[in-house]
This record gives sequence, structure tokens and C-alpha cells, in this order.
Amino acid sequence: MSSGRRGFLGGIGLAGLAGAVAASQRSARAARTAPLAPVAGGGIVPFFGAHQAGIATPQQRAIYWAVFDMVATTRPELAKLMADWTAAAAKLCAGAGLDDATPDPAQPGRDSDDTMGMRPERLTLTFGFGPTLFSKDGADRFGLAARRPAAFVDLPQFPGDQLVPGRTGGDLSVQACADDPQVCFHAVRQLARLADGVAKLRWVQAGFLADYAAGQTPRNLMGFKDGTINVATGEARAMDRFVWADASQGWMAGGSYQVARPIRIALEHWDRMKLGFQEQTFGRHKASGAPIGCRREFDRLDLDANDADGNPVIAENAHVRLAAPETNGGAQILRRSYSYDNGVSYVAERWPPWRQGMEYDAGLLFICYQADPRAGFIRLFEKMSRFDMMNQFTTHVGGGLFACPGGARPDRYVGEALLG
Amino acid sequence: MSSGRRGFLGGIGLAGLAGAVAASQRSARAARTAPLAPVAGGGIVPFFGAHQAGIATPQQRAIYWAVFDMVATTRPELAKLMADWTAAAAKLCAGAGLDDATPDPAQPGRDSDDTMGMRPERLTLTFGFGPTLFSKDGADRFGLAARRPAAFVDLPQFPGDQLVPGRTGGDLSVQACADDPQVCFHAVRQLARLADGVAKLRWVQAGFLADYAAGQTPRNLMGFKDGTINVATGEARAMDRFVWADASQGWMAGGSYQVARPIRIALEHWDRMKLGFQEQTFGRHKASGAPIGCRREFDRLDLDANDADGNPVIAENAHVRLAAPETNGGAQILRRSYSYDNGVSYVAERWPPWRQGMEYDAGLLFICYQADPRAGFIRLFEKMSRFDMMNQFTTHVGGGLFACPGGARPDRYVGEALLG
Repeated sequence: MSSGRRGFLGGIGLAGLAGAVAASQRSARAARTAPLAPVAGGGIVPFFGAHQAGIATPQQRAIYWAVFDMVATTRPELAKLMADWTAAAAKLCAGAGLDDATPDPAQPGRDSDDTMGMRPERLTLTFGFGPTLFSKDGADRFGLAARRPAAFVDLPQFPGDQLVPGRTGGDLSVQACADDPQVCFHAVRQLARLADGVAKLRWVQAGFLADYAAGQTPRNLMGFKDGTINVATGEARAMDRFVWADASQGWMAGGSYQVARPIRIALEHWDRMKLGFQEQTFGRHKASGAPIGCRREFDRLDLDANDADGNPVIAENAHVRLAAPETNGGAQILRRSYSYDNGVSYVAERWPPWRQGMEYDAGLLFICYQADPRAGFIRLFEKMSRFDMMNQFTTHVGGGLFACPGGARPDRYVGEALLG
Repeated sequence: MSSGRRGFLGGIGLAGLAGAVAASQRSARAARTAPLAPVAGGGIVPFFGAHQAGIATPQQRAIYWAVFDMVATTRPELAKLMADWTAAAAKLCAGAGLDDATPDPAQPGRDSDDTMGMRPERLTLTFGFGPTLFSKDGADRFGLAARRPAAFVDLPQFPGDQLVPGRTGGDLSVQACADDPQVCFHAVRQLARLADGVAKLRWVQAGFLADYAAGQTPRNLMGFKDGTINVATGEARAMDRFVWADASQGWMAGGSYQVARPIRIALEHWDRMKLGFQEQTFGRHKASGAPIGCRREFDRLDLDANDADGNPVIAENAHVRLAAPETNGGAQILRRSYSYDNGVSYVAERWPPWRQGMEYDAGLLFICYQADPRAGFIRLFEKMSRFDMMNQFTTHVGGGLFACPGGARPDRYVGEALLG
């Protein structure tokens, strides 16, 4: 039953992809029941380009994060999957569905149709390769071991890590972001169907970004502004230095290393903390987002300031100090995180007052991009995982490191420089 | 530690609530870092009124559904909780937080602050009373048994029900809807804090409604338009007949009975079905939403039409036929459902091809409102649960029936006619 779906692009050939995609976009637009209005959240983010979209793209409001494991065992099957996914992603990000122009009622639809008639919602699909694609249990499964860049190390075990295997690692990551959660889920659902028999879902995590007005820094579930200091995506020089892998990395040139870590936050515990303690933990004031002792969010972070007693105004183990470029040899990462909410789960405390009941299974799907994880997340988190006061309230429960290759031209597929 | 939060309204007194709420709205607005722009999704839905908001309100894009169980055992504690919740809800729906004007750093904040600076996002909070509040295990816990309306029956066990206890029933329901998921979650989180020691979370379910342009019927995860035939919320006569409880129901006058059922949908299975079969199952065409054989979504549903062979055009067990008012003695319910996505969970098939792997834990958080559940959901679903072709793909995994009293005036609290 899956051959019809998987054979979808068989007759097109990759060289003809660009034209096919363009034609399908035209027909899909014609089939829409409403015009593609240029409203906020309705726009198209180009899929093709020097870099994959979804990294420097301004954050959308929703994410469906998915990691797949390969079932197929050969390199051509892996290459075909990336070609199929590229072709589908180009259509989906253009706001088109995968249906034929005139679907056959005697066949399953090529598309689940649950976004038919919707706007593109700025959908981006960003693909990454996991370390296990290069080497797993000592086996070079796809003949790629020799092409693993030096920068693509394994993430170390950090202090405090409580990684659940079912939410950790995997062969292929897909970051689907859009301004609507159904558009994100729809995209992954179609990619999963195209992967039938070739790759299967390993773990997923949906998330959201609060709808703050343009120019405001969104707050995460801890109530503090998140993202005040971040790599400026509009500054090419900063992006080249901190985010994009350079030509020395071969097939990864123009790509970026993606770290994704679901971080559970003990929200009930956090909510019981004194406001002043919360601010000391962050090193910032809660309402304004200003560094402790300052008034405005973007006031300079002065890590050398002392109070009248000679103690640092911003505590030695405050989150903002440990994360600052100044205390990390200038290291920066591009953060692109979403809050998540997986409902509630049962907990029984083992200390007074021995509370029993439901606790939020919620937190932050931390995502960041960097040119070299050794100089990025690993460097920063080696220290933060040991000393950050915030660790009292946060637990990394899964995640992984993935190598996102550069973007594709319309006649190529994502990862072709590695797999082609 | 909780006394400060729970005592929040202690000094105000219910008679002064209106003034206090209005004042707090003014101060909260003044504290916002951005003006309350009258943009789409940014508006305020009035909390007070003849009916609770969130029933006739046009659907927002996100929901956080929560059910609480009472921990406290006395009627005054229950009444105080509803008064506290009413006061907080009025503030939250006006876009205000619960913080003091000048928060004390030596105390926990009254608000988690994760929506500080956001627009109101059309937040509504709708409260319901579960059957167990009136009688549980034979005990009249709060002296309310005699006041249970005849219409407030227990939901029967329907064929196919697979109700998980941890997602079923409960004493108090809270439906938080807004155009932003963080605003929904924030509201329930504050209400849960106010309930500390009095009521505790039993189960929750977040959901979303796809962002279709105004005037279009959204599609749910099955890819079909959902809500083409529904009670017209703008028609007072239809609302009085089908949705609002009348004066004969005493304290429930102006209220409505709320049924909420998380319905898991076997999406992978559904996606493998032929398009024509999917359309027969619904009784509608997928792309247009038109009844089978018709061209436009709102074409009249002709249940008597036969094809050339004398067979009904719309199958006897098609969803749309079994749900139609014409086949149910004119019965109608106001549907107000959201899609949900709880990630993936492991499944091993017990039949060929014995697939093993992750399956979407996703579906529809079905919610409906009615003046009398015996003439509404129960009547409709007694038949649909037996015959609906769609049951092959859907499973009710939890839920409950709750009595939502009428709306409150600014000097009263929700449910005061029952509890006061």
C-alpha cells in the first residue's frame, strides 16, 4: 500500500524537481478556497537557499520536533529518502499539499488534507543527521564514518542529565516550525508517510512560543524573558562566526550543528520561590528583564559590579553570568527554543510535606545552533550544568546533537553533498 | 506558604469584587509594556454576563482543559474557591495578571508572570461542576445531592468506550480557551495555585484549532471540515432551545451541560484508507465539504437521495447521517472541539504485518454544550457509538459531563446560585 506514496516522485527525477515543485505550487494555489493573504503569519519562507530555513528564520509560534530512526539499511535508500523529503518539504513550505491535481477516490490520498485551504504559516522544515547515521554500535551502517566532521563529536554526559532513551538520540531530526501547530504536525505526518518502510518515528515533542508583539522578547514558562542576548541573525559576520559551519567542514559547509534538549521545569516548585530569589537565579529582574540593578532589558550586563559589601551584584552562579559570552571566551550559540506542555503526571514527594498528586510535565524544548558544538553548547553547558542556580528547577530529560547540512538548490536535495 | 496566595481576596470581600477587578484591570493595563492593540486575537471577551463566556464565544485557537478534584471537604471552602476563581478569572480574561502593583521581592509572586506584557488573546474561562460534587460513592459530600437537576444524569457506558480513569470524571472542570496556548496554560496554572490545599489537578488536555481564515470551516486531523452543521450561536432562539438550561432547572438556569471527551484517532490507519472510503465514512466530500453528490459545503444534506441502483447516496452508517438533526428528532448540540497531540506512544500490532513502532497519540478533544444531555450528547451518541463507520478509527479514551452554571454578575461568583 505504501508503494504508491513512496513512488510519488519516481516519475519526476531530481533534475526536474524545481519545475515540478513550481507547477505543483501553482495548482495547489489554484485549489485553495481563499486567497493567500499577506497577513502576519500567513507568509512563505523560501525552502531552498544557501542555508536551511528554520535556523536564521525569525521564530514561528509553534514547533513539531521529530526524530526518526532508519529502518532501511542501504545508502541509496537513505539518499532517496532525503530526496523525497526535500521535494515534499519544498511543496509544504510553499503552502501546497501533496495531493494529485485530481485525486483518485480508489486510492489513499497522498496528503492527509488537514491543512487544505490554510495559509503557509511561515512553515520551515530543517533536517539534521544524527551521530548514529555515521557509526552505531561500532558499525559503519551507511559507509559514512569517514565523512564525519571532527566537530561532530558525541555529546558528553553532563552532570544532572536524566536522559530518557525514548526521548534521546536518533538518526534523522526534523524541526517543523510554523505559526500554526496543525501546519507543523501536518508536515511531519506527511514526511513520516513518505518514510514508510525506510525510517520510523523515534521521538517527538511539540512546543509553542508565546504570541508577544513584534519587537518584544517572549517569556518562557519561568516567567522571565528568554532570548535577550542571542546571536543577531541579521548580522552575517556573527552568523558566519558562531552559527554556520565553514568550508573546512566539507559537506557541512553552510550547515549548522543543532542541539535539542527537552528540559523539564519544576514549575510548581519555581512558583513557590520568592521573587527576589528567582531574580538572583536568573541575574535579571523579572518584570523588565534588566540585569540586576539596572532598569532596562538591554542595559549592559556588568558582571564586575559589586554591592556596598563588595559582593557581586550578579551572583557567581546566576544563569546570566554563566551563559554570558564574557565568561565563556566569547562563545555564543543561536538559541531557538520553544516551551512545551505534555500535560500532568503523577508524583509522590519523598520529603515533607509528602505531597502526592499531579505535576506539570512541562518545560522548555531548548534548541540551539552553532558552527562547532565543542565551542558552543558543550563549552557552555559543561560549566552551567555544574554551577547554574537554575539547575535546582530544571532537568534535561532527553535530546541530541544533529548535523544540519547547508541548504539545497532547487535541483538538489538536502544532504546531497554527503549522500550523493 | 500558600496562605498568602489563598488569602489574596480576603481583604476585599465579594461585594467589592467588581470595583477591585476594575481597579486591577486599570493598574495591570498601565503596567503593560505595550498598548493593548485591537488586533485579531488580541481582544478581550467579557468574563461577566448572563452566560459564562467560552460557550457561545467564537472558538479561539488554543485550549487548556483541566479537571480538578476537591481536597477540602466543606461547602464554605468550595464556595470560597469558586469566589477566588471568579475574581482571578475576571482579571485574567481582562488581560491582567494577579501580581500586586509593587510585588514584594521577599515573597513569591502572586502570578507566574509568563504572560506579562501579552495581549488578552480572547481568553475565556468556563467552569463546570462534576456529578461527584453532588454525590460520590453514595456520600453527599457538600450537601448538594438534593439540588442536582434531573437533567444532570450520569453518562452511560457507551459501546466502544475505553475510558482511562486518569482522564475521566472529576469534581470541577475548567475550560481555558485563548488565541495563544501560553495564555491558556497560564490561566489554569494560576487557578491551580489559588486552589492549593482546596482542590488539585486530576487530568488535563491541551489542544488547538487550525488557523483557518475567518468564514472558513476548520479541518480536524482527519482532514475533513468539522463544524459545518452546528447550532448558530448568534441565533438566540436556537441557543435557548438547544444550549441554555431554562428556568425550570433552578440554579442551572442560563447554564449549559458540557461534555468533554478526548477521542484518540488512529491517524496512520485513517491515512491508509482510500479517499472514496473516507468520504463514504463521513458522508461528505473531503476537499469541498459538500454532502456526497453535491458540490458546495452548505448544500442541503439530502438523506433521502438514492443512486441509480436505489441505494442511499449517503450511507446508512455515514457519520453525517447519524449525527444529523433529521435522524435524531431534531436534537442538536453546540460543538466546540479542539484537536490534540500528545506525541507518540509505542504500539505492537497483533496481526499482519505485525508492525511495531511509535504511533501518534493524537485526536480530537470533543467538547459540546447542551441544555439537557439526555436530549443532546447521550441521545446522539447512543446511536453513533453503535453504528457510526467512523468508530473504526476513533476511540473515546476519557472525559466527563459537567454542569456549567450561568454567568456571574460582577458582584457575584460563578455557581453562587448553587453554593451561596
